[in-house]
Amino acid sequence: MARKKEIMVGIDLGGTSVKALAVNRKNSVLATEKKKTEAGSNAKGVIQEIASLVEKTAKAAGMKVKALAAVGIGAPGAIDVRRGVVVEAPNLGWKNVPLGGELKKYLGVPVVLDNDVNVGVIGEHALGAGERVDGLVGIFVGTGIGGGIISKGEIYEGSNGWAGEVGHTVILMDGPACSCGRRGCAEALASRTAMERDVRDAIKSGRKSAIPRIMKERGKDRITSSVIQAALAEKDPVMMEVMERAQYCLGILVANVVNTLDPERVVIGGGIAERLGKDFTNPIRRTAYEYFLHPQTAKRTQIVPGSLGDNAGALGAVVLARQRLGL
Amino acid sequence: MARKKEIMVGIDLGGTSVKALAVNRKNSVLATEKKKTEAGSNAKGVIQEIASLVEKTAKAAGMKVKALAAVGIGAPGAIDVRRGVVVEAPNLGWKNVPLGGELKKYLGVPVVLDNDVNVGVIGEHALGAGERVDGLVGIFVGTGIGGGIISKGEIYEGSNGWAGEVGHTVILMDGPACSCGRRGCAEALASRTAMERDVRDAIKSGRKSAIPRIMKERGKDRITSSVIQAALAEKDPVMMEVMERAQYCLGILVANVVNTLDPERVVIGGGIAERLGKDFTNPIRRTAYEYFLHPQTAKRTQIVPGSLGDNAGALGAVVLARQRLGL
Repeated sequence: MARKKEIMVGIDLGGTSVKALAVNRKNSVLATEKKKTEAGSNAKGVIQEIASLVEKTAKAAGMKVKALAAVGIGAPGAIDVRRGVVVEAPNLGWKNVPLGGELKKYLGVPVVLDNDVNVGVIGEHALGAGERVDGLVGIFVGTGIGGGIISKGEIYEGSNGWAGEVGHTVILMDGPACSCGRRGCAEALASRTAMERDVRDAIKSGRKSAIPRIMKERGKDRITSSVIQAALAEKDPVMMEVMERAQYCLGILVANVVNTLDPERVVIGGGIAERLGKDFTNPIRRTAYEYFLHPQTAKRTQIVPGSLGDNAGALGAVVLARQRLGL
Repeated sequence: MARKKEIMVGIDLGGTSVKALAVNRKNSVLATEKKKTEAGSNAKGVIQEIASLVEKTAKAAGMKVKALAAVGIGAPGAIDVRRGVVVEAPNLGWKNVPLGGELKKYLGVPVVLDNDVNVGVIGEHALGAGERVDGLVGIFVGTGIGGGIISKGEIYEGSNGWAGEVGHTVILMDGPACSCGRRGCAEALASRTAMERDVRDAIKSGRKSAIPRIMKERGKDRITSSVIQAALAEKDPVMMEVMERAQYCLGILVANVVNTLDPERVVIGGGIAERLGKDFTNPIRRTAYEYFLHPQTAKRTQIVPGSLGDNAGALGAVVLARQRLGL
């Protein structure tokens, strides 16, 4: 019989949805739940929704909330890990929200909070493509580009808990505008948002592309990972060019990260990597190898796609909670 | 009376000279020696010269070599720290030179080898502008740009011992050619070599500048740190523009490093920083603060010039040797 207090719930809080999963001691997933968040809803409302999603997930796993060992949660933006506070999350419109403390009040179980990308990297490291190597950098390519660093088997928090923001390192000084208000960040050159901008610009300038048709067929108003995949499958020239450029930029970013940190492995995660797998990471690896300072590094540093897909964050939140609470 | 085996010699091996100093247990410098190295001399010859420089330095401190506790040495290029081997040092023309082991054979005392920039950062951290903060990044601007990372009080070696090469991170994709054979590295934009290239290009294109006169007066055929200082003192417009551009690039580099690693402090070392002090680092800090992702970081992350000047490497080599050997 399962002992009490060994089930945990992991939460991945995104800008548009919350994902929850319940796992047992061996990190087998017992139940998953997902909920859209309303844009512009206030922090209190979102926290209540998260609490009821935890209840629902626990119930689906045959548990009451009070019987959970703990809840781990990853949230976007700058997190004060020690105090459990979301210091600033532009995607959510939050400033100084005590998410950890409030959630603990609602649920009555321990809550551990960290940055969404950090928990994604912890997930891939512990249970996915990271395979518990000592030194790992995770780069998640989605609407933005997030990053996280594992050093000596643990997340590298930095002095304020804000290390790993490689998406906002500049690789093209005075380049295109970034969501962060600066210019030339990797995110402004190689995120899905950047690819979408480049595709739309190309079409506006008169280039022919299958993308508008593909979007219409799929009822999408954004160039999602599935649209990108379908366009590449059709060898759409605009999509191929834009993807090649983004992969080149990501290759430079990976090389910068490797020349700075010399990790054993770089894991490329996020929706596009999940869909395209090695077709996405192989060209990135080729450019990165050309830009490694020490040619010997190329033989040793592995560059691989993530393997947990959409579950990386919620699973990592559980792993982190277990580490922090000594469970 | 001084106990036996407490004096150490630190060596900083550069492309054109070797510097040695003897220190006591409190890291007070008892003697310093310096020697030019012959360009193109073979590794064996250079190692013999280093050995005799150690003897000379020990003697100047009133010791025999055999009575030294240890020798610490910093060498340029990729170092295999565990085996004490210089894997590749383009400045010296070396490949796979077992510097640590050979020197130990000549001297009969323990020898600890690491990268020259790493030992410089260790020196600034332990005895200089680093003041033993937990997390620190050192960026040394000279003929190249080197970097080293201190995390939790210790050098961050990475999985191959090659972490910290921030001078060869790309900040301007497809930008000017770098000594490493790639394009757009920080070193190709903001090292003294890059500044010299930009000054010479400006003069070639017809711009008026005091620099050729200053070089002649000082008998220099290169734009050294002292030439740069003199030209800035005269408010030479070409030098001011080139310096401003280099400082902007260094500000971007510092922001990249901070957004990646979130250290408590960044120390800018090397010849130019030594000469110009805050006049060099203040504009770098201004740009860096604009490019920090989290504005709160700006209030917390310090950006300061190095304080050990030319001694940072040799002093750091001693500190490292003491750490490694548990002395």
